[in-house]
Amino acid sequence: MIKVGIVGGSGYTGGELLRLLSLHPGAEAVCITSRKLEGTPVGDVHSHLRSICSLKFESPTISEITERCDLVFTAVPHGTAMDWVPGLLDEGAKVVDLSADYRLPLDKFEETYKMKHRAFRKAVFGMPELHPEVKGTGFVANPGCYPTGASLSVAPLVKAGLAERVVFDSKSGISGAGIAPSETSHYPNLAENVIGYKLTTHRHTAEIKQELGRLSPGVRVSFTPHVVPAIRGIMTTAHLLVKDEFVGNIPDKAEISKIYEEFYKDAHFVRMVPGSPSLGGVRGSNFCDIGFEVDGSGDRIVVLSAIDNLVKGASGQAIQNMNLMMGLSETEGLWFPGGAP
Amino acid sequence: MIKVGIVGGSGYTGGELLRLLSLHPGAEAVCITSRKLEGTPVGDVHSHLRSICSLKFESPTISEITERCDLVFTAVPHGTAMDWVPGLLDEGAKVVDLSADYRLPLDKFEETYKMKHRAFRKAVFGMPELHPEVKGTGFVANPGCYPTGASLSVAPLVKAGLAERVVFDSKSGISGAGIAPSETSHYPNLAENVIGYKLTTHRHTAEIKQELGRLSPGVRVSFTPHVVPAIRGIMTTAHLLVKDEFVGNIPDKAEISKIYEEFYKDAHFVRMVPGSPSLGGVRGSNFCDIGFEVDGSGDRIVVLSAIDNLVKGASGQAIQNMNLMMGLSETEGLWFPGGAP
Amino acid sequence: MIKVGIVGGSGYTGGELLRLLSLHPGAEAVCITSRKLEGTPVGDVHSHLRSICSLKFESPTISEITERCDLVFTAVPHGTAMDWVPGLLDEGAKVVDLSADYRLPLDKFEETYKMKHRAFRKAVFGMPELHPEVKGTGFVANPGCYPTGASLSVAPLVKAGLAERVVFDSKSGISGAGIAPSETSHYPNLAENVIGYKLTTHRHTAEIKQELGRLSPGVRVSFTPHVVPAIRGIMTTAHLLVKDEFVGNIPDKAEISKIYEEFYKDAHFVRMVPGSPSLGGVRGSNFCDIGFEVDGSGDRIVVLSAIDNLVKGASGQAIQNMNLMMGLSETEGLWFPGGAP
Amino acid sequence: MIKVGIVGGSGYTGGELLRLLSLHPGAEAVCITSRKLEGTPVGDVHSHLRSICSLKFESPTISEITERCDLVFTAVPHGTAMDWVPGLLDEGAKVVDLSADYRLPLDKFEETYKMKHRAFRKAVFGMPELHPEVKGTGFVANPGCYPTGASLSVAPLVKAGLAERVVFDSKSGISGAGIAPSETSHYPNLAENVIGYKLTTHRHTAEIKQELGRLSPGVRVSFTPHVVPAIRGIMTTAHLLVKDEFVGNIPDKAEISKIYEEFYKDAHFVRMVPGSPSLGGVRGSNFCDIGFEVDGSGDRIVVLSAIDNLVKGASGQAIQNMNLMMGLSETEGLWFPGGAP
Repeated sequence: MIKVGIVGGSGYTGGELLRLLSLHPGAEAVCITSRKLEGTPVGDVHSHLRSICSLKFESPTISEITERCDLVFTAVPHGTAMDWVPGLLDEGAKVVDLSADYRLPLDKFEETYKMKHRAFRKAVFGMPELHPEVKGTGFVANPGCYPTGASLSVAPLVKAGLAERVVFDSKSGISGAGIAPSETSHYPNLAENVIGYKLTTHRHTAEIKQELGRLSPGVRVSFTPHVVPAIRGIMTTAHLLVKDEFVGNIPDKAEISKIYEEFYKDAHFVRMVPGSPSLGGVRGSNFCDIGFEVDGSGDRIVVLSAIDNLVKGASGQAIQNMNLMMGLSETEGLWFPGGAP
Repeated sequence: MIKVGIVGGSGYTGGELLRLLSLHPGAEAVCITSRKLEGTPVGDVHSHLRSICSLKFESPTISEITERCDLVFTAVPHGTAMDWVPGLLDEGAKVVDLSADYRLPLDKFEETYKMKHRAFRKAVFGMPELHPEVKGTGFVANPGCYPTGASLSVAPLVKAGLAERVVFDSKSGISGAGIAPSETSHYPNLAENVIGYKLTTHRHTAEIKQELGRLSPGVRVSFTPHVVPAIRGIMTTAHLLVKDEFVGNIPDKAEISKIYEEFYKDAHFVRMVPGSPSLGGVRGSNFCDIGFEVDGSGDRIVVLSAIDNLVKGASGQAIQNMNLMMGLSETEGLWFPGGAP
Repeated sequence: MIKVGIVGGSGYTGGELLRLLSLHPGAEAVCITSRKLEGTPVGDVHSHLRSICSLKFESPTISEITERCDLVFTAVPHGTAMDWVPGLLDEGAKVVDLSADYRLPLDKFEETYKMKHRAFRKAVFGMPELHPEVKGTGFVANPGCYPTGASLSVAPLVKAGLAERVVFDSKSGISGAGIAPSETSHYPNLAENVIGYKLTTHRHTAEIKQELGRLSPGVRVSFTPHVVPAIRGIMTTAHLLVKDEFVGNIPDKAEISKIYEEFYKDAHFVRMVPGSPSLGGVRGSNFCDIGFEVDGSGDRIVVLSAIDNLVKGASGQAIQNMNLMMGLSETEGLWFPGGAP
Repeated sequence: MIKVGIVGGSGYTGGELLRLLSLHPGAEAVCITSRKLEGTPVGDVHSHLRSICSLKFESPTISEITERCDLVFTAVPHGTAMDWVPGLLDEGAKVVDLSADYRLPLDKFEETYKMKHRAFRKAVFGMPELHPEVKGTGFVANPGCYPTGASLSVAPLVKAGLAERVVFDSKSGISGAGIAPSETSHYPNLAENVIGYKLTTHRHTAEIKQELGRLSPGVRVSFTPHVVPAIRGIMTTAHLLVKDEFVGNIPDKAEISKIYEEFYKDAHFVRMVPGSPSLGGVRGSNFCDIGFEVDGSGDRIVVLSAIDNLVKGASGQAIQNMNLMMGLSETEGLWFPGGAP
């Protein structure tokens, strides 16, 4: 049984890690930290975990964590993770960092997050479908929620050299904005509304560019996020504009399906669906469902991907990474369906 | 491994049985029937089950089912279950009937459902917290969703003889109305609305009266259901009006808590919560969360219970019953938290 | 043209007064106050009023207001209104106070709101359907949102002497909780949920008791509020338990309809509807829609009332009061339908 | 007082015309048709109009309509409007057709709607901000909901020659799909979801191309619609990709604002907003709110437009057209704010 620690467990990501670990036969949460909630039973904060999780929030030192844990999830804000990760690694724990601190190269991080990195290390980017090197590694940077849905949606087509440019238009549930009430999460503001934000400046753009650029250097990427009246889920609409050489000459539906099937043949959590995927189909699960349509105008492919932002977009993918890092089966503890309806 | 059949699997209850069975280590769905969907892969109808469940809908005879299954869930409408249940029982299967056909005595059934019963048998009422005789039995009538939340909310207080009368005011998610679109489930009609229906005539009233009447003969019961803009969940507000002898003299909060704790000391799936329970706390899980407040006016106790109508209110409770009928631990395959947020 | 001032205009009630006044042919908002927003254009805060309302928030003295205004709406929190109302009245303005400061007799107010009243005056309770004396008066206390829906739902039956007791179970949209984000209004907490709160202690209970007690001394009243996933609207379910003498002997549907029609024959904004009313039917409008059903068990009548909490439950009723106070037709500027769907 | 008829009044568009006309001081609905509802009071179908609208549905001949009406709104499905429009026009009524039958040139219509046009006439395209020739004309084709939000969002920039291509990604409330329940409008399918549909084949694309092509021949247009969990409203995200000559050289924010202000200087119902517009800001009103951001990458401008699909996207714009056709002020009866929150 793998002993797991969670640094920063008071938010949605921490709660979701605990929920998912409670379903995992091979791993067990033994420590969850929160300075301000020290001593509070987890079920008092994450009320759905009452009876299921008997832990209390603790405020241990790094050494106290690594003595008890084989692997640690750091679920603290960017800029804070860097205070934990190097120590945890140096004392022998494996680490999956759910913050943004280690997803980008040093210079790109500092440019994007407008802050000095105090403790850079090189991590494997934890999207196993694109990074088989997650297997057996000791340190993984868990991707952002938007980059997960966006990159998976078009990776096969980008790799195949079809894309001149991809315009990503994402619609997210509000849980991605966290557990603290805000203007945006205020029910009367979000219900019956769609809220576009950081229309051209969202920091996740850098991750998407990085991942797609690896598959096809030079591909142009634009990204605009919105929140919609939903708790969980991200639906990403990828408008893939094909290279000039493919205009009027896009592979047909069957050929494109084949490209996806080939690319994802070992990807357990990616499901190609006929028509449009739905958020209900992935709710609470680690699946990424993908559908697409070729524009009859001959210059665009529209791809939709659906993920649960807290699972495949965060804690579920983190556990998928844990499985691979610890030598378990990739799907262990994650092979269950979404909760539709 | 218990072999399970599901008769009538095209609706939400059938889909939810499959979802829950996919999480169950000791039971396995081997057959799911639907005359009109015969031959269709389950994942084409319940898209969240794609990859997880490889069954196809079948249209077998009763014998063909009982040859392959140890236990059968009948998830067909009332009036139809009676065409299946006796045959299944007679050929040796254990049966959990999720319809209303066997929840009430014969005369009460015919009066309530305004139809002749063509094949009555006596079943155990499948609410294990009130019916320990579920254990080891061969035939269980799974309770209605409203009666589950309503009965559990006040059973301890009714048993303790406090209640003159209980007015139940329930608020349900719309999935209880089924998978077929209707005026009520039409988004513009339900969103931003609360829909009271069958204000004084809902047939579930008979079940609630039956269960509470067993605990305290003569207790008066009123029940009014509503649907609210939610997919899953039932929040039941029980306005318990105390007997004259307790007016101005209601046991205090601590004493009432003690009554609940004692009554539910072996009930794994009932959780007493401080303040009001939330539907998020039970979403997707088999828990029933209960909170209460004593009215300072001295003549009323208000109790709130929260369940997921498709789990504790239907398929989850059915599996809880299956566990007890088959000699498994009551919580097997059901010991996981709700999916908040 | 009546010149209107609004003291405290930064919240939903203030915004709604401006929206409704923009539709009113005989009155005009000329002054809206907010200390913290002084100088800010109204459209920057209430973005739907951009282009329509050219006022800026001001921070005037009482005299500066009364010089410019014939009538003032005070839309500040309880405990604050009392700092404004006497001054405004003494300087000759008519006043509709939307706070709770003047709805109850002095002693009842202090007991209910647990504070000393610093400046008590006697007001007319501004529910014109029950208080014809609103007409021509100079000072009105505008009722609470819950008391409006609750009192109107059963007033005719209570007046007719049918009620032993009424248990009110109300379901409100979240805008009643105000414009400031909170745990309760946090989208992931409210969506897909029903939140019972102050289950037995809501302060509006005192108003409901006052109004129904006037119609039938001794009638017992219980009240439990909930919020549901909706922006606007209150659906109140009144479980009216009849006096012993009427048990098994409740007037039939037609007779009860007649009681309502007679009682509300001059009430323009009360509409009796067949079946259950809907919040969509009243959304944005000043109507109160009422439906009912007689329980076949012979001891209960269930009545549903639907209002828009910000209109008939607050700002619309305030304008209805203004019309009557200023000698206009009761319906002026308010005779428009709700915004369904 | 202008006498108005509505052909096909049983749907949302008809109900909304009646709602808006009830607020209009210079026009009055005198006739509303529905073959299947003949004789039914309007308030029985559109319950929010109870008390407000005393009409009954009728099933008159064209002549019976034109005898009583100065102007007729045809709110029937495409393919049906063509059975009414020529007759109404020939008998002297002015007509605003809300269907798609007259929005496109004959050949384009037949190609797009895959049907033979049985009675083509030339109409003015009824988007007054782009078509001043609406004024005084006798026959207007009211635009589709998506084309309204899409065209208005970028018309000034397209006119200014900035756009190489615009990718429209629209998010609509479900009322656009009509009053009849469907799989898509089934609450459990739409709530907590985003549904992309006709990803590359929506017929409204032709209208958008037509309108933007008039402003800048050759501009490339792509359009993908989605429905989101909302009753009303369309948020359109326009990803405007600039012509090569502007790459790295896009006019700055102030210059672009100036382009919009100049273009829309006489457009009463278009409001430029700082940041992102919200659907609440336009709900129930005829406004189109627009916000934008220039992508620092130098090749994209992201524009968001918010409309109420039933008002500016249908019935409100129809009345705006009526005003101009009949010589009234453009804003008469429409100059009121949206219903936020």
